[in-house]
Amino acid sequence: MTPKVAQFLRECAPATPCLVLDVDRVAENYARLRAALPLARIYYAVKANPAAPILARLTALGSAFDAASFEEVEACLAAGARPDSISYGNTVKKASAIAAAHRAGVTMFAFDSEPELLKIAKHAPGARVYCRILVENKGAEWPLSRKFGCELDMARELMVKAGELGLDPYGISFHVGSQQTSTAAYEGAIARVAMLFTDLKEAGVKLRMVNLGGGYPVRYRQEVPGIDDFGAAIMGAMTQHFGNDLPEMVIEPGRFLVGDAGVVSSEVVLVSRKGKDDPVRWVYLDIGRFGGLAETEGEAIRYAIRTPHDGGADGPVTIAGPTCDSADTLYEKSNYRLPLALRDGDRVELLATGAYVTTYASQGFNGFQPLAEHYI
Amino acid sequence: MTPKVAQFLRECAPATPCLVLDVDRVAENYARLRAALPLARIYYAVKANPAAPILARLTALGSAFDAASFEEVEACLAAGARPDSISYGNTVKKASAIAAAHRAGVTMFAFDSEPELLKIAKHAPGARVYCRILVENKGAEWPLSRKFGCELDMARELMVKAGELGLDPYGISFHVGSQQTSTAAYEGAIARVAMLFTDLKEAGVKLRMVNLGGGYPVRYRQEVPGIDDFGAAIMGAMTQHFGNDLPEMVIEPGRFLVGDAGVVSSEVVLVSRKGKDDPVRWVYLDIGRFGGLAETEGEAIRYAIRTPHDGGADGPVTIAGPTCDSADTLYEKSNYRLPLALRDGDRVELLATGAYVTTYASQGFNGFQPLAEHYI
Repeated sequence: MTPKVAQFLRECAPATPCLVLDVDRVAENYARLRAALPLARIYYAVKANPAAPILARLTALGSAFDAASFEEVEACLAAGARPDSISYGNTVKKASAIAAAHRAGVTMFAFDSEPELLKIAKHAPGARVYCRILVENKGAEWPLSRKFGCELDMARELMVKAGELGLDPYGISFHVGSQQTSTAAYEGAIARVAMLFTDLKEAGVKLRMVNLGGGYPVRYRQEVPGIDDFGAAIMGAMTQHFGNDLPEMVIEPGRFLVGDAGVVSSEVVLVSRKGKDDPVRWVYLDIGRFGGLAETEGEAIRYAIRTPHDGGADGPVTIAGPTCDSADTLYEKSNYRLPLALRDGDRVELLATGAYVTTYASQGFNGFQPLAEHYI
Repeated sequence: MTPKVAQFLRECAPATPCLVLDVDRVAENYARLRAALPLARIYYAVKANPAAPILARLTALGSAFDAASFEEVEACLAAGARPDSISYGNTVKKASAIAAAHRAGVTMFAFDSEPELLKIAKHAPGARVYCRILVENKGAEWPLSRKFGCELDMARELMVKAGELGLDPYGISFHVGSQQTSTAAYEGAIARVAMLFTDLKEAGVKLRMVNLGGGYPVRYRQEVPGIDDFGAAIMGAMTQHFGNDLPEMVIEPGRFLVGDAGVVSSEVVLVSRKGKDDPVRWVYLDIGRFGGLAETEGEAIRYAIRTPHDGGADGPVTIAGPTCDSADTLYEKSNYRLPLALRDGDRVELLATGAYVTTYASQGFNGFQPLAEHYI
């Protein structure tokens, strides 16, 4: 928690649940990432947190943007971003959304299938396109399965076809999974991309860009490798595989830029036991999986929690949200312990919750309104 | 899909994604449930779908309401419900919410722990209270784990204490899990409740109400027992265990009343393969897990899907939502097959989606707005 967030919580005691996010910390994270990967252009993954103050600050810093929808394109433009700094990075887009982005001046589009490529050729003629390939997600705490990306063979054919369709076959992208804690994940993926570059060059298609995706981790309960380690691993692999002929490099950080800038403040609604001798207490917060903490699904992302009683005797707890849905349970198997003194009415803070919280919040499940947001 | 919903979709072709719900079907389901369990009072579980037209129609039919939050209490009152027809059924409530409901005239509150009982005694003095106990959820497609309810021993002590605190120890509740397809689940739970009634009578506390919860199933892809079967099983168990001294009976249907009244209309955004010879196509819809179809988590609830090409040759598919999140995959393991002719731009319908969809929708993950709602 940054000093500015701590001061705001102390002095303003905003109604819970809420997110308080220090926009200066976003700028600091942007600077750290720039320093770690000076050759890469940063496209902020807007979906991590599309709040206008974040987009405006990043625009002022010279960031580009990775948009998942036309609505996110519009949010970037509203914050002052230039259309040619926006990549429409979702490989699944309605034809109408492609056309709208094209009209708005967006020139860079992702795809991973022939039908999508045909849509782009028709509705954004001449656009720069990049193909997303499937890579291993080992080491990621929020892995991405096979939903996005295609096999290498198909990527090769489609990039040739892109040129034939009058599009600009710009590059290749991959994603090693979110909250990726292994630097090795990037090395294997870069090797695959380099093979594609070579094959396509032989086929007469000169690619110019590698999109390394995002996934750079944030410290939650456990230490993670520093961003410099990722920078070194990525640059090592790039020079190993591309030598002196380095392509343009794009990165799409989301969590890394905004995650540790934010804190969710929540009220304890109830602390109870299921039976008299049950050693485990149930702690119910006023925010849960359907209030924004969706990444606690499967206990994948394990946030650190601060309470007013930290340092006192503690015991094991199951932590749940406020709704009548049992799926709204945050942590049952992750060995959380909280102070025995914890009571309903206490305020607790969930740390490093600046990413992937606000927009996930349901519009009103069980009648609960989405959390408030304070950007300071 | 009711004829009225089919006609609306055909004639109005509303923008997707949207829910179209036939309020007359809700009334029909209410009548069927009344007929199957004439001795039970129906408390509609508002969380299943809190839309004003549904609440107003059920109020007119004489239904009572099970509210999960003070916001849901307010929604019922706004629809014309009398405060004494509202049960505040969430066992986890802020003190401020209890006080607000009490001020609004609500007199019936759930609890499952001593701290909650103390909160109710302080902020809703004299209220009727019922204790939720833990029961088996075997047979439920959306089971409820241990989040709600307490052990029998604790329930017994707390009901005695309720009287000592000046509250009215009204009854016992349980929940056999949602989309419960086994009638036997109720029989075991009722036996436990009857034991508690006997024990507490010996302790001088005369309980008057059994709250049988909800969970009555809806037909999705597979047949389920009819509501008459549940009615017969429940009444059989009640008479077996309570004889001629039947207590008041409360039921809290949500899914059963509104589920099959609604249809989600969605557009296919993309149909693709990951490799040339991949037998499985990926079908991406413009609604997914974060757009309201939250109950597809773990492929728990498997909706039937209609397409314009039904009857033609089909093949295996993985079905996913439109966001950049891989967790936004609906069905990968449930052996869905869809027509080979399916293309982007086609409209499909997800049947029996009137319950637990609209309010789950994220307020804007990836920039996508919540689905539109049409009550006809």
